[in-house]
Amino acid sequence: MDGSIIHPGNRRPRQFVYPGRMRLSSRLPPGFELNALSALLARLRSEGRPVLDLTGSNPTRCGFAYPEADIRAALSVPAVLGYDPDPQGSRIAREAIATHHGHGLRAGELLLTASTSEGYGLLFKLLGDPGDEVLVPSPSYPLFDWLARLEGLQARPVPSYFHDRWHLDLGALEAAAGPRTRAVVVVNPNNPTGHFLSRAEWSALTALCGRLGLALLVDEVFADYALEPPADRLATALLDPDPPCPVFLLSGLSKVAALPQLKLGWIAARGPGAAECLDALAFLADQYLSVSAPAQAAAPALLALAPGIRGQVLARLRANLASLDAALTAHPHLSRLPVEGGWSVLLRRPAVDGDEACALRLLEQSGVLVHPGSFFDLPGDGHLVLSLLTPEETFRDGLARIFPSL
Amino acid sequence: MDGSIIHPGNRRPRQFVYPGRMRLSSRLPPGFELNALSALLARLRSEGRPVLDLTGSNPTRCGFAYPEADIRAALSVPAVLGYDPDPQGSRIAREAIATHHGHGLRAGELLLTASTSEGYGLLFKLLGDPGDEVLVPSPSYPLFDWLARLEGLQARPVPSYFHDRWHLDLGALEAAAGPRTRAVVVVNPNNPTGHFLSRAEWSALTALCGRLGLALLVDEVFADYALEPPADRLATALLDPDPPCPVFLLSGLSKVAALPQLKLGWIAARGPGAAECLDALAFLADQYLSVSAPAQAAAPALLALAPGIRGQVLARLRANLASLDAALTAHPHLSRLPVEGGWSVLLRRPAVDGDEACALRLLEQSGVLVHPGSFFDLPGDGHLVLSLLTPEETFRDGLARIFPSL
Ligand SMILES: Cc1ncc(COP(=O)(O)O)c(C=O)c1O
Ligand SMILES: Cc1ncc(COP(=O)(O)O)c(C=O)c1O
Repeated sequence: MDGSIIHPGNRRPRQFVYPGRMRLSSRLPPGFELNALSALLARLRSEGRPVLDLTGSNPTRCGFAYPEADIRAALSVPAVLGYDPDPQGSRIAREAIATHHGHGLRAGELLLTASTSEGYGLLFKLLGDPGDEVLVPSPSYPLFDWLARLEGLQARPVPSYFHDRWHLDLGALEAAAGPRTRAVVVVNPNNPTGHFLSRAEWSALTALCGRLGLALLVDEVFADYALEPPADRLATALLDPDPPCPVFLLSGLSKVAALPQLKLGWIAARGPGAAECLDALAFLADQYLSVSAPAQAAAPALLALAPGIRGQVLARLRANLASLDAALTAHPHLSRLPVEGGWSVLLRRPAVDGDEACALRLLEQSGVLVHPGSFFDLPGDGHLVLSLLTPEETFRDGLARIFPSL
Repeated sequence: MDGSIIHPGNRRPRQFVYPGRMRLSSRLPPGFELNALSALLARLRSEGRPVLDLTGSNPTRCGFAYPEADIRAALSVPAVLGYDPDPQGSRIAREAIATHHGHGLRAGELLLTASTSEGYGLLFKLLGDPGDEVLVPSPSYPLFDWLARLEGLQARPVPSYFHDRWHLDLGALEAAAGPRTRAVVVVNPNNPTGHFLSRAEWSALTALCGRLGLALLVDEVFADYALEPPADRLATALLDPDPPCPVFLLSGLSKVAALPQLKLGWIAARGPGAAECLDALAFLADQYLSVSAPAQAAAPALLALAPGIRGQVLARLRANLASLDAALTAHPHLSRLPVEGGWSVLLRRPAVDGDEACALRLLEQSGVLVHPGSFFDLPGDGHLVLSLLTPEETFRDGLARIFPSL
């Protein structure tokens, strides 16, 4: 999501004219025009109008104090001069990652990738044939649509529901699973809702997957950013040493160390068939070998530095939540959803206009960029999504500017 | 190819037993057992028997003197601390790559990838739907089979023929092109034959692709390693500023700077529809953003260092060719094919046994590892493939050991 301010799945289609007889893949979207919000943002920027961006998800541009010398040193150790093409990735890096996760995770259960996106690509290639599908409790990370589609699969959203907190709709998941369903993809804690699975949800979900012969993909990139209760949260899927279905956990340095530019992600496999699946994933990864030596060589040092970086990020998330709560006291018609974890918050507003229209209005009239809930498949209207990574002053100023017109 | 000593496409199938009701993608091979040559090698190594490896393609393990301090410094410049997610890749890196190639290539015509393998993945996603196919003049780089299949496409080999030099069989290519054919994939100079396209072949091939509505993928990773005449070689596809079909050139630091571990490849697009295709490739790349900041930030410095590294590689290739020619004078029943370019040479021998049986015999009896021609789809028996990257003494010793038994 760092790549484009707004997910291209939301861009308005424009018909593409391909030259001559050449025809491009039907996996592609019909066009690449900017959606209305991106187009407006581009116009304002070209006019030199200042914009307060409350959507930033690139941690390297949020004013954190990275241990720069240490990071640079880690990226230039002598090991970067050698190529050691282990398709699972360097054992030393995997050992450091296993230690970071704890819960008995072993280096042998891990496979490195250049990003969690690549991890999804490999898993979809592993699990599905063209025409197969995966179920995605929604709202969720919008990239799944495309990551699945580009492998010939379809990501089918299954709405979760909000009742004091978010809940997976297990009945709807079961009803949605058909003969071509291969897996369920959950994000724990979820982006953008911040929902952690509860332990009871985990048991029920893994039992369901086991019964239906489905794999379970669990994206835990935000797992180190737990914020508000409840206490029954499943802090990580690794708490379950022996799940009844194959479980693939995805994570990476993008969030664990707030270093998305280094391009190191990983997959941990557990549950029935994990060893065979790792063999097959290694076969797939061996065709690409995408992970750079500097990222692999630096991983142990970067993971040792990560808690210091995450501490700053956590302080930012908490400070912005506190600012938001303070601002909300003066605007009782507005509220926010609980943030169990992660980097974003859902603001609730009276649905006097559509979410996207509202975001356009706020950008045009107040010069403040927020994401409409519809970009993340939030049901109905009445939600805006704000990034808690935003520098604190920008966040406060942005809220002060938009609250009067919500 | 650096990842596994022998391409897994050649591994002997073993039926996989998947747990419970889960079923894995039919894209995968039926099993991951080692083929006979890999298994023998593993056994000899486990027994502690020394092996002379004449197949090494990992330049970082071939004794070249890399400018280590400069490379490490390039990987740790301050820019590695920022994430600037341009889906085409950093402009500064693209400008350096454009300068490296010359021939009027512009940064805007380039898109960075984490490897040429990733580049193929993106191009197959761009050009084909599941069930479509690409034509590959063979013998060629064996990875194409899998790179295509993993995107749901099929790579169909179309045999080239050898008559003084290698020739594309344009008639066979035209005959093989059907309604689901999307592209032709050539390697210039080819791996493992070293064949450069002639200028006449280029004209005929691009005209054919234009007429049939096909794209042309040209892998030029070895283009900087021209060795023997002829003079009519197409040194690079970029000599043609205005081809009659869409042309995608692939290359990367793996061979250009003999630094495969840094994971920087690229695609250059030219010809009809190139701008639209680059838009679509950027959309695809934006879903993954696989290229690390250190590789992008280092690219200009590494390309400046590359000629010094390539000079050593070229000297090695020439020295090994000279050793081979010297050794061949005493064994008139053996010969080699011309090496127009690249890192390997084809040795011709009387086909008294199959290529794979011969390679097994040489490994078992002489402790020398060579690749059978069959691993690269060389027609019939009577070819072994040697890596000219092999350290010179190892190469000479290896030849001395195997020539008497060929
Ligand atoms: C749920 C989720 N997974 C993965 C990622 C990104 O991972 P990567 O940078 O490793 O591709 C993000 C980034 O926003 C995310 O929200
Ligand atoms: C023809 C060809 N293309 C590409 C590559 C490798 O490229 P990369 O390391 O960028 O994936 C090789 C390596 O052997 C090759 O032979």
